[in-house]
Formats: sequence, C-alpha cells, structure tokens
Amino acid sequence: MSSDRNYEREFVRTFFTSPTAVSGENSAKMLQSAAQLRGMQAPDTWIPDNEDATAPSMRAEGVQNLVEVVSEHGADFPGEIHPRVVWHRDDPSTRYEGFKQMLEITDPENGAVEHIDGFVIPEVGDLDDWKKADEFITIIEHEHGLDEGSLSMSVIIESGEAELAMSDLRAEKGKPSNNLERLFLLVDGQVDYTKDMRAMTPTGELPAWAELRHNTSRGASAAGCIAVDGPYDDIRDVEGYRERMVENRAMGMTGIWALTPGQVVTANEAPLPPKTGSWLLELDDDEIELDAEDGRQVYDGDELSLEQVGDDSYVLRVDGEEQELDAEELHEELLDLTTYVPSMDDIVDSMEEFEAAKEAGKGAIAMTQATTLVIDGVEVDIAKDRMWDEATYQAAMTPVALFQDVYEHRPDQHDALEEMYGEGIVERAMAVGTDD
Amino acid sequence: MSSDRNYEREFVRTFFTSPTAVSGENSAKMLQSAAQLRGMQAPDTWIPDNEDATAPSMRAEGVQNLVEVVSEHGADFPGEIHPRVVWHRDDPSTRYEGFKQMLEITDPENGAVEHIDGFVIPEVGDLDDWKKADEFITIIEHEHGLDEGSLSMSVIIESGEAELAMSDLRAEKGKPSNNLERLFLLVDGQVDYTKDMRAMTPTGELPAWAELRHNTSRGASAAGCIAVDGPYDDIRDVEGYRERMVENRAMGMTGIWALTPGQVVTANEAPLPPKTGSWLLELDDDEIELDAEDGRQVYDGDELSLEQVGDDSYVLRVDGEEQELDAEELHEELLDLTTYVPSMDDIVDSMEEFEAAKEAGKGAIAMTQATTLVIDGVEVDIAKDRMWDEATYQAAMTPVALFQDVYEHRPDQHDALEEMYGEGIVERAMAVGTDD
Amino acid sequence: MSSDRNYEREFVRTFFTSPTAVSGENSAKMLQSAAQLRGMQAPDTWIPDNEDATAPSMRAEGVQNLVEVVSEHGADFPGEIHPRVVWHRDDPSTRYEGFKQMLEITDPENGAVEHIDGFVIPEVGDLDDWKKADEFITIIEHEHGLDEGSLSMSVIIESGEAELAMSDLRAEKGKPSNNLERLFLLVDGQVDYTKDMRAMTPTGELPAWAELRHNTSRGASAAGCIAVDGPYDDIRDVEGYRERMVENRAMGMTGIWALTPGQVVTANEAPLPPKTGSWLLELDDDEIELDAEDGRQVYDGDELSLEQVGDDSYVLRVDGEEQELDAEELHEELLDLTTYVPSMDDIVDSMEEFEAAKEAGKGAIAMTQATTLVIDGVEVDIAKDRMWDEATYQAAMTPVALFQDVYEHRPDQHDALEEMYGEGIVERAMAVGTDD
Repeated sequence: MSSDRNYEREFVRTFFTSPTAVSGENSAKMLQSAAQLRGMQAPDTWIPDNEDATAPSMRAEGVQNLVEVVSEHGADFPGEIHPRVVWHRDDPSTRYEGFKQMLEITDPENGAVEHIDGFVIPEVGDLDDWKKADEFITIIEHEHGLDEGSLSMSVIIESGEAELAMSDLRAEKGKPSNNLERLFLLVDGQVDYTKDMRAMTPTGELPAWAELRHNTSRGASAAGCIAVDGPYDDIRDVEGYRERMVENRAMGMTGIWALTPGQVVTANEAPLPPKTGSWLLELDDDEIELDAEDGRQVYDGDELSLEQVGDDSYVLRVDGEEQELDAEELHEELLDLTTYVPSMDDIVDSMEEFEAAKEAGKGAIAMTQATTLVIDGVEVDIAKDRMWDEATYQAAMTPVALFQDVYEHRPDQHDALEEMYGEGIVERAMAVGTDD
Repeated sequence: MSSDRNYEREFVRTFFTSPTAVSGENSAKMLQSAAQLRGMQAPDTWIPDNEDATAPSMRAEGVQNLVEVVSEHGADFPGEIHPRVVWHRDDPSTRYEGFKQMLEITDPENGAVEHIDGFVIPEVGDLDDWKKADEFITIIEHEHGLDEGSLSMSVIIESGEAELAMSDLRAEKGKPSNNLERLFLLVDGQVDYTKDMRAMTPTGELPAWAELRHNTSRGASAAGCIAVDGPYDDIRDVEGYRERMVENRAMGMTGIWALTPGQVVTANEAPLPPKTGSWLLELDDDEIELDAEDGRQVYDGDELSLEQVGDDSYVLRVDGEEQELDAEELHEELLDLTTYVPSMDDIVDSMEEFEAAKEAGKGAIAMTQATTLVIDGVEVDIAKDRMWDEATYQAAMTPVALFQDVYEHRPDQHDALEEMYGEGIVERAMAVGTDD
Repeated sequence: MSSDRNYEREFVRTFFTSPTAVSGENSAKMLQSAAQLRGMQAPDTWIPDNEDATAPSMRAEGVQNLVEVVSEHGADFPGEIHPRVVWHRDDPSTRYEGFKQMLEITDPENGAVEHIDGFVIPEVGDLDDWKKADEFITIIEHEHGLDEGSLSMSVIIESGEAELAMSDLRAEKGKPSNNLERLFLLVDGQVDYTKDMRAMTPTGELPAWAELRHNTSRGASAAGCIAVDGPYDDIRDVEGYRERMVENRAMGMTGIWALTPGQVVTANEAPLPPKTGSWLLELDDDEIELDAEDGRQVYDGDELSLEQVGDDSYVLRVDGEEQELDAEELHEELLDLTTYVPSMDDIVDSMEEFEAAKEAGKGAIAMTQATTLVIDGVEVDIAKDRMWDEATYQAAMTPVALFQDVYEHRPDQHDALEEMYGEGIVERAMAVGTDD
C-alpha cells in the first residue's frame, strides 16, 4: 500500500567510493581489490569514481581502468555497480564529457555494460538539468541496444537548486517525455553543498545540514528512491560514523557513503536489528546499557543508587537527588528511567502476535516487555506496555523489511546473517509481514 | 491584516481521539462518555475514530455507533465533532469505503448530520488526492442538501507527498474546480509518517520530526488552516506532553492530539497564559523558577551563591566559577541570568500601554519589568527593558488572541477561565487589540 | 562555475537599521550620524527605516528627512543605501503608500537618487506580491530615467507564504515580464514571522526558527541572492550575537541585521578568518581554547589531566574517567579531543598548496596540521591529517572569497584589514583562487 518504488530494492545501506580515483598511481590495483569484496565486506552499491578524486587530465585513463576491472570482475561482484562520471549544472562541456564517459563505459564492445547497473551524476541542478542526464542515458540505451530505463540514475544533491528539485520530482517523473523513473539513489554531497550555500564553520568541519537530510529523505520517499547520506570524513572515528547512521535512520535515510572497506562493513551491519535485546537506563544526558545476567538487568555504576529502607519504602538517588518512594512509586520511576532496544527476535514475535490479533478481529493490542532490574542488589520487576495498532505494526516492519531486502538481494551475506541471528530467526523474519 | 483564515476559529487546542475504536467491546459506552465531556474536560475538536483503531471488519458497526451517539448527544457537545473515516492515497477501494462512510454518517435520516462539523481524512497523498476527498464531500453536501463548503475537511499528514502538498495548498485552494477552502486542521500523523519515510529508531520510539512540524505549521499559516501535532503515546508522561506543547507552540503549532480525557485537560490549559508571572533563573542547562515572596524573588538552591564583601563589592559564584563584581556589574550579570514569564495580566497591561503610545504618535516604546532578587539574603533590584514596536505588539497579541478565540467559542469554559484569571482580567483580555 | 549571482557582491555582512525611525524626535540627528560612519563602523548595507519604527502619521516627514540626509551625505557613505518603505501583502493602500514613498525618494529633483542602491520591501507574501513591488520599481526607473534593473530590491521574509515563495524564485526570476533579477537580500524578519505563524514562547523571546533560516539561505543560494538574519534584540549580549552568527554562517547565511553601531562592528568583523590559528580542546560539553606559548599549546584547566607513569605509559583523566594508555593510544585520544581553527594565513597556505598539486596532476592531497600539546607539564606531539580534493578546496575558498569581496567593495576598510592581518597576507589572500 505504500508508494511505488522505482526498483525492487527498497533499502541500500552502502554507497562505496574509495577516496582514491579510478586513475592515477595504484588505482588499477585498488579498483581490483574493491571489485573482489564479498559478504559484509562488499557494499550494496559500489561507485567507481571518475569525478572529484580524479584529476581532470586523468579521466580518459580512468574510464579505461574502470572498463577493464568491471569487465573482468563485474560478473562476480555481489553488489550493484554504479560508476560516477563528471557532470555540472553550470558547465555544458563537463556535461558533454560525462555523456562521453557513459557512452564509452557502456559500449558493448568493452564488455563491462552487462555488469553496470547505472550511473551516479554529481553536481545536478534544477530538475531540467536532471532531465539532461536522463536524456543522455536514454540515448545511450538506444545506441547500445539496451532496454529503455534499464540503466538507473543516481544523483548527488550538492546545490540549493538540487535540494529544491527533489520537491518536484514526484510530479515530473511520470511524464512521457522523460525516463526519470530510472532514478535510484538521492545522495547528499555535503562538501560541495557547503560551498554552494556559502557556508562556513570555524574549523572547516562540515555543518550538520539536518534540513537537507530531511528534505532528501522526504524527496526519496515521495519519488520511490532511496536516500543516502554523504561521506563521513573522519574515517578513524567509527563511533561517530555509527551515531551519524542512527541519526540518519531516524530521518528515513537508510544508506550512507563509505570511503573505506572498514566503513562498508560498519555501514552494512548498522541498520540490522540486534541479535539480542537490551535494556537502557536513560539518565539526564547519558544512556547506559544494563548488563544482562540470567535474565536480570544489573546496574553497576554510581549515577543511580537504590536502597530498601522499610517494608514498602525505598530511597532512590538519581544525579544527586534523593527521593523516598513506596514500591508502586518506585516502579513508576524506574519505568520512566528505562527503555528497551528490541532484538530481531522480539520484533518478529510482536509482529506475529499482532497479525494473529488482527485475524481475530482486534484493531489494537497491548505488547508487554518485562524484566527484573537489579540496582545495588535491590531487585525490582518492571513491565512496559505499548499499544500496537495497524500503524505501529507497519512502522515496526521497517527494520524487518530492510532485513528481507538484504537477504533477498545479497546471497553472499546469507552466511553472515545466519551466523549473526541463527537460522530459525532468519526463517521467521523472512516469513513475517509478507501477505500484506 | 494577516492571512485570511478558512474558519472563524483561529486556534484549536485539542484533537481528541480515544485510542478505542468506535466499534468493538465497550465502544458505545466510551463514545457516549466522550460525548458528555464538558468544560476543560471537553476538547475543541472531538474525532470519533473509525480508522486505525477499528479492525476492518468492524467498520460498518462503527458508523452505526457513531451515528447513534452523535445524534443523541451531539446537540449538547460543546466542541466540534469531526469523525475520522478511512482513506488511503494508494487504494481506491479504501477511498470509496471512506466516501460511503461519510455519506452514511451525514444521511439526514440518521439525525447526526447537524452536529457534524466536518471529517478527518487520514493517509492523504498529493494535493490531487486531497481533491478527491474534497470532491466526495462536495457530492455529499449536494446529495444531502447541505451548503457547499459547510462541512470542513481536516487531513492527517503521514506521507512525504502530503508534506510536500502543503507547500502548494495556498495556490490551489482558490481554484474554481475545488472547495479546498473547507480545509480546517493539518494534523501530523507521525507513526504512519515514520513508516512511510522508512525511518527507524533503536527503541521503536518516534523520531522528533521537527522539520515536518515546521512545514505543517507553515503550510497551515499560508493556507488559513490550523496545525495540530500527532499523538503523544506515553500517556502517563504529563510533563513530557507539556514540554512537547511548549516546543510546538514555538513552531506555531497550537493544537495537539489527545488520546485520553486527562490529555484533553492538559492540552486545553497549556497554551493559555499563566495567571501569575514568574521569574526564572537560567543556568547553564537548567531553568529554575524563583519563589515569589512579598514581591521579591527568592533563590534557595546552591547552584548560585552571592555574598556582599565590601561597600560596592560582591562575590557571585555560578556553576563553581567565582567573580568579584561591583554593584553595576552585578546588576548586568543578574539581568543576563534571569528572565520573566509574563502573566495574562502583564501581557494585557503591555498591550494597553502600547496602544496608548501609538495613538499619541509614538512608534516604539520601552517596556520595563522590575523586581527584587534575593540570593543568600542579599537583595538586588533589577529592571529589564524591552523595546516594543508594532511588530512586537502584534506578536505579543498571539496568546491573547488564543484566549479570545477560546472564550468566544467555548462558553462552557467561561467558568473555568473566570476562576483561573478573575473576572476583571478576562474582561480586559477580551477588549484588548480588537480595533485592529 | 557556481550559480550566477544577481550582483557583484556575493557576501553582505551587515544590514543596519537603527531602531530609531527616520522621523520623530532626534531622528534627523541620528540619520546624519549613521550616514557618517566609516570603516568597520560602517555597514555593508544601511537601511534607513520608514516602516515599523515610524508611527504611521510620521512617514511623510520620514521621507523628507531621509532624502535630505542621503543627498547631503550619500556620496561619501562607504556602504550601500537601501531605504525600507512600507508594504503589506494583505493591504493595497499600504502597498500604494510604499510606491509613493519610493517614487518620492528617487525623484531626481531631490538629489538623493544617485546614492540609493535599492529598496527593502517588508511583509511580502506570495511571489505574485513580490512582483507587484518589482513592477513599481520598474515604473519608477522609467519615470525617473534610470536604467531598468538598476535599483535593487531586498525583501523581508516574515510570513509563511514568503518562505514558500523562495522555493519558486529561481524559476520565476528569468521570466520576461518581471525584473526579479533585481533581488539582492533575502532577510528574515522573525518578529512578524512569529506573529504570522501564531507562534508563542513562555517568555516572549523569539523562537530559533532554524528551518526558516535554512530555507532562506537555500533560496538565496538558488536565486543568486544573499541571506541575512533578522534583528538580535538583546543588544547588550555581544557573545550571544557572535554565537548566532557562527550558527548562521554554518547555514550559509552570511549577513545579520545590526540595530546599533556596536552590532555593526561586531557583525563586520565576525565572518573574517582570524589573524592567528588556535587549537581547541573539545570536551563533552565544553570547547576550550588552548594557550599558545612558543608554538606549544598549553592546557591549564582541571577538566583534563595527564601523567606519564612509565616509559611508554600514560594516565589520562577526562571528566573523571581515567585511562592508562601507551604513547600511540595517547596520541589517538588527544587527536580526538583537539581541533584546529585555521588562521587566514593557514587557509591561504593550504589553497596554494592544493593549487600546485592540481597543476601537477594530483586530484587529492593530505594537508597536515601539527603542534605540541602540553598538559600538566607532559608534552605530546600531534599531527592532524585531512584529505583535500577539489570539493574541499572549493569549500575552503568561502571565507577567502568573503574577504576578497569585502576588500574589493569596501576601500574604507583596507586600513583595518591590513592592520588586522598584515599586508603580506592581505596580498596573498587577494591573489589565491582567482584563476578559476
């Protein structure tokens, strides 16, 4: 019942461009090693880059390297391959150059085209500019005997006008004189966007651009595309990269640029629901994962303390503030302080339960998550209720749908997924929610 | 001088849907008790819900229950009644079902129609989809002998395309082939929106969706509608619900969904200016209300300390940092640390003062708010000045305009309001700003 | 290669309206003193205000004062002069009044027109409303024998519909029946916007309106205009004003309203890169500038402590947490905790280095920033690497481009700039990046 997607894949986790160009020193070797990645090491989409990272004088060589590596290794590469060519909304000769690069890469005589899924067009402007790239790809399809619309097109949003264009995409893409249904990924390119917006920060770090990411995600949702966040420069900062992805997923942006094979692994794994659930303590400005011991959740730190001082009387201290509470008040207070991160297993359980209720004619049911907290040796049983209706159920489906999408399109990751979750859960996760 | 509103009401505080469906166990009883709410317990708009909370097989029964309860209790219900019917941008049979539900509910033979103010249409998509619902309502008005445009239409924004549609609403609503001037509430539906955007959070909690709320508020402002925030799931968390409303009002979203009668009361009261003003101490990450004692504002905590160490010499300690200041510097420092939350009385005073100045040919005047702070026994007089010009005056009018709107349309709340403010203030608040 | 700007100036730092009107008590004197500001005291754009701050009955007198002062002092005023006249999207008589004010101000017989660069139109609505103002200015240009398009037009965004209009500006401004290429500044007017959005805060302070600022900046970027933030009311709060500008620049909003000559100086200086670079320690919620002593960066506080406990063993304590680290781990940890704010000199160095690399056929190079940290007497050498490619280079150009823009258009600020940076750096900064 949701908006039609342009392609079968609904989620793309990784948009992998090595920061090294497709031409220049060592580039052939690096291209080959990227093409031979497998499993969690291999991205959902690999973007051999013949734009920014390649000096202008080396781009002809770049196309040749790219064609050689893709024709040799493309058949075995488990993800999709979408080379990035040059393009610029303000420069016709750059656009013509991009056209020629695509024409050459897809020349049937070069043997690469059957492994090319589409192209990435950087620096697009208004929708009329997107249409120029679309038209070139249409011409290429006709010249090379490919089906019209068989090559996808992804764009990098790195100007104000491209951000605005995403609002009109849904209305334009059905028109008979274009093939914009080929649009696949909408990718934020924050470095050039920052330049285009004349934005500055004291340290030269990139602004957060939350509104851009929202608008990209919304544009993707409305036009059947997939939203992908830009490069995360500080490649040593794995924790920061993970946090950025948590933020992005909360905006509906499921993919992220990866600059290194290490970032690919992190970005492939991050959006999948965890194998085991966990309880969090949410303090003022801190989130602490509790230690699960024999089904009980133990807190060991000293930001919180609890003492039983009478039959029905407890003293709870949080952040230096003390309260005396009876058992019921304590229960309430601890409910407020805790939250649960469900496992894949939990999510599948809840969905199956709701599906059964719906068949029995119920519109809404309560789901309960219970555990025993242990704080300073004092044990407290808590139970969190949440009402589920059709909308809750549909929203909870998203991480499962992502899992199903990955499982279906990435057989090379089956082993890793089964090792991660166990076979039983994989099977149930693949079965749930599929009759809608 | 501001944009024309589609309806006389400019503010709606409460959008009340019980989480229980209009059909199923206990539903008739719950519907009746909702219909009999009065005063601060009764919402501005009541939305008997025949969509998500009702299982698909029970919706015919839902319409019957709804018609019975509204025809029996509707005449005495003090708020407006806007049933929610089924609808989906991607499903013609759901839309046709929604049409039939509305046709039945408004059938003059059923006796409910004279108490029905409009309908809530969920899951709308592009503006062309909104127009389909609008057209059905127009047909219904003609079939049942109602004036064209007499039924309002409110929509739930729960997809990217609906969010985008709000940008075009202002331009479309005047066109001769629609009656979109009937649009009343733009309501964010964050659960389904989250699903539609493919968004995920680790705990399953809803993302904050600040941009969506901004865009809804802006769309409402531009098209003469009223913006309403979605359901706040954690119905025990009154403080969180209040904080959400403070955030919303700062975005121009004056209404919020209420799931329980308790939330209705909270949401009815929250946007009204307080009876008494209060001084706040704004520390690094804390906001502390000072105790008013005999017109002096006393601080008792230990995050701040003050000592007079000489004739014109003070030591002020804030967050562990000590400064030695003379009387003037101390005054400056304390001005920076304090802020005033004006009462209804204060606001009315300021507006009357500015109105008088304007008549006397002055464009801008300074308003002063003075008090005596008492910190560790040391007394310091402070006075805050603020320049008022026409724009300040107009912006300060908003809470008063909200009060006037409530007072005019909710006679059943007069007692509560007079008890809250006293009769004199109510009278002056109703008189101010009305000759513009 | 970037979007065409409507005017030569790409950056405007200061939008100066005195809060005192152009008419009324002391106004002639205040106008004259504003017109005689020079150097860093003089704004990039001066907006003598005949709207909000002037009572309606005094506006004819306002025009006369304005004409007199501008004709006397305009030739020597170093910035641009853009009077604000009255206008309202919902009121034809206010619009007609605005037209008459502009007609009078530009009457060649009054001697002011040659010093008038354009007009500021407040309270605009839809783009069709902007076109009405544009048309009046076109008529005025013809009536008074000025070149079509020679007067610029700046607008104040203070309604939801004006915010929406900015999305369509790029597409509309090239059309043959308007002269919207005259658009210069898009200025947020948050007080009236707050009113129009029906927004409220408990204290009456203005909401942050981050989305509005983003949309204004994006609209300016897409349509060749310059984005300017609204007035900062608390004129004593210099630090807050600076912080607001840091936020704004990270959004691409380079200009800000100044209400006082003091704010003009602050706003003129703030966007320029610093004379000397500095190292920051980034703790949890704090950013601490380190003391540079003989090329070493010394930390003196107690939020961080470091002790060497063995040959290759250190104890680092941050925020109460202790870790034992070897030299390499310590280096990593300190890299994470520090960041560098480059000086103008550093930026110019990096750009020259990249330009040389590009000529030598390299697409990307690493830039290193090294220093010695001294914490509790322990010395640690650190080196931060950053990859630069064409996009990084272009983004780093923004502060230099701003400097070049200022230097070119404000000869009266040359002395201040040379004093600030030294002549050598000024010369190199003017030369860099100019062959693109």
